Amino acid sequence: MKKYNALNESIISQLKAIAGEKSVITETERMEAYSHDELLEPACMKYPEAVVLAKNAGEISEILKLANRENIPVIPRGAGTGLTSASVACFGGIVLSLEKMDKIIEIDSSNMFMTAEAGVRTAEIQRAAREHGMLYAGDPCSGESSFIGGNAATNAGGNKAVKYGTTRRQIYGLEIVTATGEILNIGGKCMKDSTGYSLLNLIIGSEGTLAVITKVCLKLMPLPPNSIDLLIVFDDFQKAIGTVPEIIKLGVNPTCVEFMDNTVVKNCEKFLKEKLPHSENGHYIIVKIEGPGMEALEEDSVKIDELCSKRGSLETLVADPARIWKARNAFAEADRAESPVFSAEDLVVPPAMIPAAVKYISELAAKYGLVVHCAGHAADGNVHAHILKGALAEGDWREKLNSLQKELYATVYSMGGKLSGEHGIGYKRVELMSQFCPEHELNMMKSIKQALDPNLILNPGKIFKI
Amino acid sequence: MKKYNALNESIISQLKAIAGEKSVITETERMEAYSHDELLEPACMKYPEAVVLAKNAGEISEILKLANRENIPVIPRGAGTGLTSASVACFGGIVLSLEKMDKIIEIDSSNMFMTAEAGVRTAEIQRAAREHGMLYAGDPCSGESSFIGGNAATNAGGNKAVKYGTTRRQIYGLEIVTATGEILNIGGKCMKDSTGYSLLNLIIGSEGTLAVITKVCLKLMPLPPNSIDLLIVFDDFQKAIGTVPEIIKLGVNPTCVEFMDNTVVKNCEKFLKEKLPHSENGHYIIVKIEGPGMEALEEDSVKIDELCSKRGSLETLVADPARIWKARNAFAEADRAESPVFSAEDLVVPPAMIPAAVKYISELAAKYGLVVHCAGHAADGNVHAHILKGALAEGDWREKLNSLQKELYATVYSMGGKLSGEHGIGYKRVELMSQFCPEHELNMMKSIKQALDPNLILNPGKIFKI
Repeated sequence: MKKYNALNESIISQLKAIAGEKSVITETERMEAYSHDELLEPACMKYPEAVVLAKNAGEISEILKLANRENIPVIPRGAGTGLTSASVACFGGIVLSLEKMDKIIEIDSSNMFMTAEAGVRTAEIQRAAREHGMLYAGDPCSGESSFIGGNAATNAGGNKAVKYGTTRRQIYGLEIVTATGEILNIGGKCMKDSTGYSLLNLIIGSEGTLAVITKVCLKLMPLPPNSIDLLIVFDDFQKAIGTVPEIIKLGVNPTCVEFMDNTVVKNCEKFLKEKLPHSENGHYIIVKIEGPGMEALEEDSVKIDELCSKRGSLETLVADPARIWKARNAFAEADRAESPVFSAEDLVVPPAMIPAAVKYISELAAKYGLVVHCAGHAADGNVHAHILKGALAEGDWREKLNSLQKELYATVYSMGGKLSGEHGIGYKRVELMSQFCPEHELNMMKSIKQALDPNLILNPGKIFKI
Repeated sequence: MKKYNALNESIISQLKAIAGEKSVITETERMEAYSHDELLEPACMKYPEAVVLAKNAGEISEILKLANRENIPVIPRGAGTGLTSASVACFGGIVLSLEKMDKIIEIDSSNMFMTAEAGVRTAEIQRAAREHGMLYAGDPCSGESSFIGGNAATNAGGNKAVKYGTTRRQIYGLEIVTATGEILNIGGKCMKDSTGYSLLNLIIGSEGTLAVITKVCLKLMPLPPNSIDLLIVFDDFQKAIGTVPEIIKLGVNPTCVEFMDNTVVKNCEKFLKEKLPHSENGHYIIVKIEGPGMEALEEDSVKIDELCSKRGSLETLVADPARIWKARNAFAEADRAESPVFSAEDLVVPPAMIPAAVKYISELAAKYGLVVHCAGHAADGNVHAHILKGALAEGDWREKLNSLQKELYATVYSMGGKLSGEHGIGYKRVELMSQFCPEHELNMMKSIKQALDPNLILNPGKIFKI
């Protein structure tokens, strides 16, 4: 790893001159909130040397030029709802928070685009689109608190990616500040673009290592006026998950297809203190379908029910969306209540491999005597496996977790899968990335990093070490 | 521009040792077919020094290693259906044709993916998917002759991009040979992937300047069982094109929304020797809608018809798809019959700007006394403006075209538009790219090129000059 300089009084004065006295935080107690994201693993937490609350791209440009001159790391940060410590100053330096850049700039109804600063909450974007009769289709589970800029930087996924794709597919333009401090607009409101390399797609998902995202231009679409949520209960997990690819082949184009295994159902019931259907032995598949006509949706529901009955489901319930999605989204919180420290694995496999992958995970958990809860995006092949530390001693937990992960990802890669479907690599998965990402692919990423950030100022030690 | 070495006997022998005697072409007459693509502009045509018909990634790896050692350009080439000379050896060297790599490797019905070599024709991919009850949604107008690898390298668009997106959205995995000769699989059959930088999206659309694409892994989807094609005729072009954004807002999610102005309608009628409806004064909007139920499609057709009538259309006809798409797809051939040399502009603007953009083009054409025919992808904002040379002398034509393009793209960029929606930059638009692409953006592209192809061996002088 490259060596960086420590912040000194002179640099702090220069930061204050750029961003204003009040926008530069150096008091330890005020920096606690910036010392971690939602991954509460001590090895992944660290206090920054300073936090700067930037107000516009101009300030960020000056901060980056200063950081390049002084050899200081800069770590862009959204709402801190990540799960990989991507926005934590693991190697010191300045945390650059986008929280003050929280304005929606334009809702362009004729072209159906919204332009917003990076610090606008995702749910705010969704609400503003809805108020204008349109849909913003990005929908990470952390949407109420996450920022749209963070969604872009991590290519956030979520429940609706089955139909609409991940955040990548919603973004058509970005304002960025490059690592060397140039302000640049890439992409825009064009529906197609073959004008040179897709820098847009390179920056999306690069976790703040190539540029700071300051504005996003988002595609909106007509609001589907009707929807139906179905809860399909099976008494056997493999039967439940094995039905998902068949649902996709029906051609009903579902918006969401989620799964919760029985341990997750039970745990969410306990956490929410609400009786959930068939919680004694039920494994859940949750399907949302949306469309213009209620009649067509009802026909599609019948098709889904018939298919699932034929494949041995216990029951198909038309679900109250508020209740069922509250249960699904309580997954992480319910696990945190059970065990404050857990490792949220985010593996992704080709969709038809999910039954085998989940079966393998439970076998591994049994082998290592660890508790694992599985839920996630069934039609995407994206499994969230929460491996709970529970009462294990730190050393024991670390050792077991490392061994389990090594075996798990060897199998995931042999299935054609990957380390991360939607959370990203951040700091948490750097070691796994170096083990499982093919060497030439990782070298290409490193070459690009060095080409676009020659002093390695932006978010060092994330995704890979140089 | 960097200087390259010329091919000599020793290098040709080495190429023959790698690919086999018969797979290395050096006879002038046999190289004619490789000296141009569909852009028949003398300044953009050039004979290569040799053509190699590679049979697998291993051979390509060896060829690239040889080219790096000997400082020889390598120009990857698909079917040669491009319109920008991206696959022409404009600075000499070896044309690397993918035509022998023409096998479909796998149709994976359980995950709904197809894996194919780069030299498979797009129409062959579509047919194979259909035979397995699935849809491959990529559909460039040149699909009968283009190769899937070329579609990937240029991020080809086409008529169905309104609903399904361009080729980028269909591709989940690639086998590539890097500029330095490493064979690498990127992406795969995962529906989501946040495992480091999206090299996949960087390589797609990079026009053979960063890597040679040898295999593609394509997403398939359930085949929509029903479709309706509507031909909506207006007597006023601005009225016709102005209706398109309103069609999108209906929420009917059309598969295609194309337009043909009256000069194009007349020209296609003449070329096809078939009477087209209202050809005397009709401007066409062609809409295709697809879905599971015929009833819902009929309801959507009524909605579209009512909207268009309210906005002053002459008539909405349920069209015979074979006839109407034959007319639409005859656009380029009909113009070529009229004027063998023409410049196919491929501008893209935010969708609501199309009426203004097309109006401006016709004003510019009048100003310069040039004949321009406009058709294209109405809902995408992607306008194909064919500027015909006709009987103009070479010098006069060049001068007028250059002046017109300069004015045109200054206005297109001020509208938030770009040089190319789907054809790419290639060699043809290098000058325009250097004029209109923001300097820092172009510099980022050049930095990436230098990082991934340090000897600048792959397809030099395309997209930009270094």
